[in-house]
Amino acid sequence: MHKIKIGIIGATGYTGSELVRILYNHPAAELKLITSESRAGDRFSDVHPAFEGVVDMKLIKAGEAELSELDVLFLALPHGVSMRYVEQFQELDIPLIDLSGDFRLDSPKTYESWYQKEHTFPQGFAGAVYGLPELWRERIRSAKLIANPGCYPTTAILGLLPAFAYRLIDPQSIVVDAKSGATGAGVKPKPVTHFGTANDNFRAYGLKNHRHTVEMEQQLGHSGAGKVCLQFTPHLLPVDRGILATIYARPAEGRQLSREKLVELYKSHFADHPFVRIVPNPPTLKEVRGSNFCNIYPDYDERTGNVIILSAIDNLVKGAAGQAVQNMNLLFDLNETEGLQQLPLAP
Amino acid sequence: MHKIKIGIIGATGYTGSELVRILYNHPAAELKLITSESRAGDRFSDVHPAFEGVVDMKLIKAGEAELSELDVLFLALPHGVSMRYVEQFQELDIPLIDLSGDFRLDSPKTYESWYQKEHTFPQGFAGAVYGLPELWRERIRSAKLIANPGCYPTTAILGLLPAFAYRLIDPQSIVVDAKSGATGAGVKPKPVTHFGTANDNFRAYGLKNHRHTVEMEQQLGHSGAGKVCLQFTPHLLPVDRGILATIYARPAEGRQLSREKLVELYKSHFADHPFVRIVPNPPTLKEVRGSNFCNIYPDYDERTGNVIILSAIDNLVKGAAGQAVQNMNLLFDLNETEGLQQLPLAP
Amino acid sequence: MHKIKIGIIGATGYTGSELVRILYNHPAAELKLITSESRAGDRFSDVHPAFEGVVDMKLIKAGEAELSELDVLFLALPHGVSMRYVEQFQELDIPLIDLSGDFRLDSPKTYESWYQKEHTFPQGFAGAVYGLPELWRERIRSAKLIANPGCYPTTAILGLLPAFAYRLIDPQSIVVDAKSGATGAGVKPKPVTHFGTANDNFRAYGLKNHRHTVEMEQQLGHSGAGKVCLQFTPHLLPVDRGILATIYARPAEGRQLSREKLVELYKSHFADHPFVRIVPNPPTLKEVRGSNFCNIYPDYDERTGNVIILSAIDNLVKGAAGQAVQNMNLLFDLNETEGLQQLPLAP
Amino acid sequence: MHKIKIGIIGATGYTGSELVRILYNHPAAELKLITSESRAGDRFSDVHPAFEGVVDMKLIKAGEAELSELDVLFLALPHGVSMRYVEQFQELDIPLIDLSGDFRLDSPKTYESWYQKEHTFPQGFAGAVYGLPELWRERIRSAKLIANPGCYPTTAILGLLPAFAYRLIDPQSIVVDAKSGATGAGVKPKPVTHFGTANDNFRAYGLKNHRHTVEMEQQLGHSGAGKVCLQFTPHLLPVDRGILATIYARPAEGRQLSREKLVELYKSHFADHPFVRIVPNPPTLKEVRGSNFCNIYPDYDERTGNVIILSAIDNLVKGAAGQAVQNMNLLFDLNETEGLQQLPLAP
Repeated sequence: MHKIKIGIIGATGYTGSELVRILYNHPAAELKLITSESRAGDRFSDVHPAFEGVVDMKLIKAGEAELSELDVLFLALPHGVSMRYVEQFQELDIPLIDLSGDFRLDSPKTYESWYQKEHTFPQGFAGAVYGLPELWRERIRSAKLIANPGCYPTTAILGLLPAFAYRLIDPQSIVVDAKSGATGAGVKPKPVTHFGTANDNFRAYGLKNHRHTVEMEQQLGHSGAGKVCLQFTPHLLPVDRGILATIYARPAEGRQLSREKLVELYKSHFADHPFVRIVPNPPTLKEVRGSNFCNIYPDYDERTGNVIILSAIDNLVKGAAGQAVQNMNLLFDLNETEGLQQLPLAP
Repeated sequence: MHKIKIGIIGATGYTGSELVRILYNHPAAELKLITSESRAGDRFSDVHPAFEGVVDMKLIKAGEAELSELDVLFLALPHGVSMRYVEQFQELDIPLIDLSGDFRLDSPKTYESWYQKEHTFPQGFAGAVYGLPELWRERIRSAKLIANPGCYPTTAILGLLPAFAYRLIDPQSIVVDAKSGATGAGVKPKPVTHFGTANDNFRAYGLKNHRHTVEMEQQLGHSGAGKVCLQFTPHLLPVDRGILATIYARPAEGRQLSREKLVELYKSHFADHPFVRIVPNPPTLKEVRGSNFCNIYPDYDERTGNVIILSAIDNLVKGAAGQAVQNMNLLFDLNETEGLQQLPLAP
Repeated sequence: MHKIKIGIIGATGYTGSELVRILYNHPAAELKLITSESRAGDRFSDVHPAFEGVVDMKLIKAGEAELSELDVLFLALPHGVSMRYVEQFQELDIPLIDLSGDFRLDSPKTYESWYQKEHTFPQGFAGAVYGLPELWRERIRSAKLIANPGCYPTTAILGLLPAFAYRLIDPQSIVVDAKSGATGAGVKPKPVTHFGTANDNFRAYGLKNHRHTVEMEQQLGHSGAGKVCLQFTPHLLPVDRGILATIYARPAEGRQLSREKLVELYKSHFADHPFVRIVPNPPTLKEVRGSNFCNIYPDYDERTGNVIILSAIDNLVKGAAGQAVQNMNLLFDLNETEGLQQLPLAP
Repeated sequence: MHKIKIGIIGATGYTGSELVRILYNHPAAELKLITSESRAGDRFSDVHPAFEGVVDMKLIKAGEAELSELDVLFLALPHGVSMRYVEQFQELDIPLIDLSGDFRLDSPKTYESWYQKEHTFPQGFAGAVYGLPELWRERIRSAKLIANPGCYPTTAILGLLPAFAYRLIDPQSIVVDAKSGATGAGVKPKPVTHFGTANDNFRAYGLKNHRHTVEMEQQLGHSGAGKVCLQFTPHLLPVDRGILATIYARPAEGRQLSREKLVELYKSHFADHPFVRIVPNPPTLKEVRGSNFCNIYPDYDERTGNVIILSAIDNLVKGAAGQAVQNMNLLFDLNETEGLQQLPLAP
């Protein structure tokens, strides 16, 4: 079998190491190079000791990498940095899978408003496809630039997709109360994720203005169910990996709902999406940890008239690197689950 | 100073040990006896080794305890068990502070409906006062039976009290998304709080039917703001102590709100309540851990029109034993903060 | 390819679920049945929700299982229980891989002395091979009964093997100070692994009399380096998985040591053992988590004259289910790493 | 009562906030000022939100502080920085309690060798007293400069003191395998204590050359039991607070030992030391968390002939701020336990 020749731009972060962890066991993947500006010259396993003796490849600077032979590039870079590389890699004429937030929104203008930062490659938006396979599978197959979704939006949008598709809920009534493991805040040490601060602790953050809010609203808005207004509150859990979103909404006017009906519609909607599981009990993070699954539990409270949806993923897998590989599989006409069948690590 | 002679019924649970921890340093308290049916004959420090050399008192069976000289009794028992002791202790004619859920609701009928259990001492409800000092301070001073509030209701009700008092929100629109440390599930080992299950994990539970729902609705209903309909979803955090409630509500019709206004009204409402702090940033659990504080952060999102309130306590202190001692202080005309000035343990 | 037909006896424990997790992605394995006495009739995924939609196979009672078509049986049972099944399964005449401690020691007499329990199948010891591939690879290939090693002994013995093989240390001077994640204590809820007890906590246990002591002493004794006397102290870490052993020993008389020399000899000794890594820095648990690796760091302190060896594994993988699959690979002449190439989950 | 007027130099670290937490409830203490170079102008509660509404005092620069009216100064500064302030504060002629490592060793020469740093105030060593009350109680009462002990040395020395005093063990045979919570690494975010690195993980560090080694050796050497050679290996636990040291030693020549005898001698040795508890079971970290206790469990293994001693403290209390306050109590002729009777927070 011809193997897909892969380059990863950015090695030091969690998405970088997670890509390598997954691709290492991907039967159709051949990892050719990994770049790092700050750690060039070191081995990948010097930066990530778990890979000692397994992935000892030397890191190189992006500018010194031989990219012309590659079939695909993953960009595991911070937002703001990634757009510069995307621009530069246009000339390679190979698919780019960008794990940053730089091309996820519908326009540079929205980007600049929510990210508080100038966008230096606004032309990139034209060719970008939002890389959520459960939503845009066909468009992804032929994309040149895939904007790999944010971790919170993946969780929330998957949890809400059938409710929007079947017009079950009022799109103006949504509350997404989401809780994420600390790897979501990145590999760089900072006070809020210092062990003494984060351990045995819990907090909300980013009230009212987290960038993932608009990403959710825009993608759900494409359903045609009307303008979406969504209250999103992220929280920081003292766990490594995983996001659980508890989603509340009012039924669409005139809708008669029940848990049974929701389960049936959710199962139907995701019938040919192998990574979404409609589970019989409220999901826990460990039931998806290390895997590309999204576990969803829809419910309806007859007493209060509220829809409640629980949705759980591993933020580094389905919320980042796993989803990126799923997108790669679509790009190269592979089985969508190729290389992604690792089961959750529980406990 | 004459010291208050205290007995504690029930020694093996977290509320029992927490009462002893607090009362040991209370200048007006004299702990006379602690009972346990299952561990009678053992020392208190055999059950709770942290007290070795400090509280080595022998545990006795309640039936063998000399109760007649006591000034007050704390009942640290499971619901369903507590009501039997409350009935029996009526004859002592001293104040009883019951930390169980047996007398928190407005009627035996509601109890039986939400607790799925017959109430064997319905007469007890007549004399019971709901022991939330920030709500019923004056009634508590002369109560014979204090129903010490649940941990989730303490968090949520304190977070909502000013909003109800000033008629700021629609009482039918409330979502309480609450997250609790594992000690809230009690001292008895069970699968859900087994370390391998709970650690590095997170889950929702008790969807739609948790007993604390009705406790919140009833107490908030006494505000006169109208019938309350509240969606309550508890979650299990991998932390020892603490509850953070993220509360969402719609403004009352015609209400113009802002974060500044909310802060002002909240500060004003709690001005003479020493344990409630309106804090300048979203609270974290460690900022209240081990203390009797409730930290509240009210907010308003102009984009969505939602009120968001964060409220945090230590479930074993303000949510149980600390609040019980606060109630004792009121009963005996002491300063409300007596013995409760221990600062949070952070980190 | 003809697939190996596999049965697993015992489904509810951690070793059972871990076997399924690994075997599910093993290219030569076909999982035919899983038994459980307590949960027969339920699906495997009812007991372990992480497997929902993936391994939904019904559990059956061992007595009702059709075992005659199987190629190999894994016994994932408590010690004391396992010996009865081993006896009964003799008639099947297929290899048995026993993950319990029932046949790890050299004789029923030693078993009875350290396990404080009668051994009901003493004949079993004759055919049992201690399933540590790095020590008994060739004997394992033809074994009928494999006694899969304990988790602590795997960690300590691997850490000490080259030191014994090359006669580097005094076998009477060894201290093994080992720290294990809580899954080592099993799936059954008990006070010591209750979340409120284990979280943010740490303790030693089993001082002087832990059963794994004699397992280490006996296996190391086979090296011919003389009688072994080893002080073993296990500790309980607030982590899910992993064991780190810090091992101290005095050099053998007349031995001149250095860190460089130790590293060279250790690398040489394990040169053809794919799961042992001699690592350049002190290992951490996450660098092996979820994988079959054992990371070893040998050191020598010139100031004190002590040898210090650090050895780390995942107790559920190299310390249990992974090692069992490694043994299966040897039994069926497969590549030793088949199905075991999953990389560590870090973070 | 005249209150002791107190200044704290250094506000942002864990020892600073812990001093304030303890002194706030000390009946004889009056906290007059807290300095910070980096956060001057902010309130103490801006830096440590747990103190909101309780200790809102403005931080000032040390150079702008009015120190002349103070009775005592605590220095909660990094080593290397502290020595400069100690030198400068000589002229105040009040007792200084230095929580850094700058004056703990016996000479500037040893300091420079183990700390790899020039000592700029070598004259300071002459007047410094090592602030371990269980060892130097009388000298502390009249000290001008108290070198508050390191956290590891406090744990290990207390665990070994009776063994040295009664000549029970061979002073050349000691292994101290110690495990510490992450607050021991300080408040400053760094990779090793980043949540994603430290959580659910465990590692050894500082092999062979940790500075606390020589501190232990020197203090134990003062016992007159002969030259001490001690192997010290620190480890990083995924817990906030606490150190557990597992100590191994060979009996002194000719010594007949037993656990009973050790317990008797240990109890006798610490009979008038209120913070040392000889406990009946192996101690856990939570049994001392937040308190000034040191829990010790001495044992003897007849099979191996080894002495094993377990010793546990809260590194921020008995290992830092609590011990500093204990020293202050001695300096001002107060009861040694004044302000330090807070019980452990367990769970």
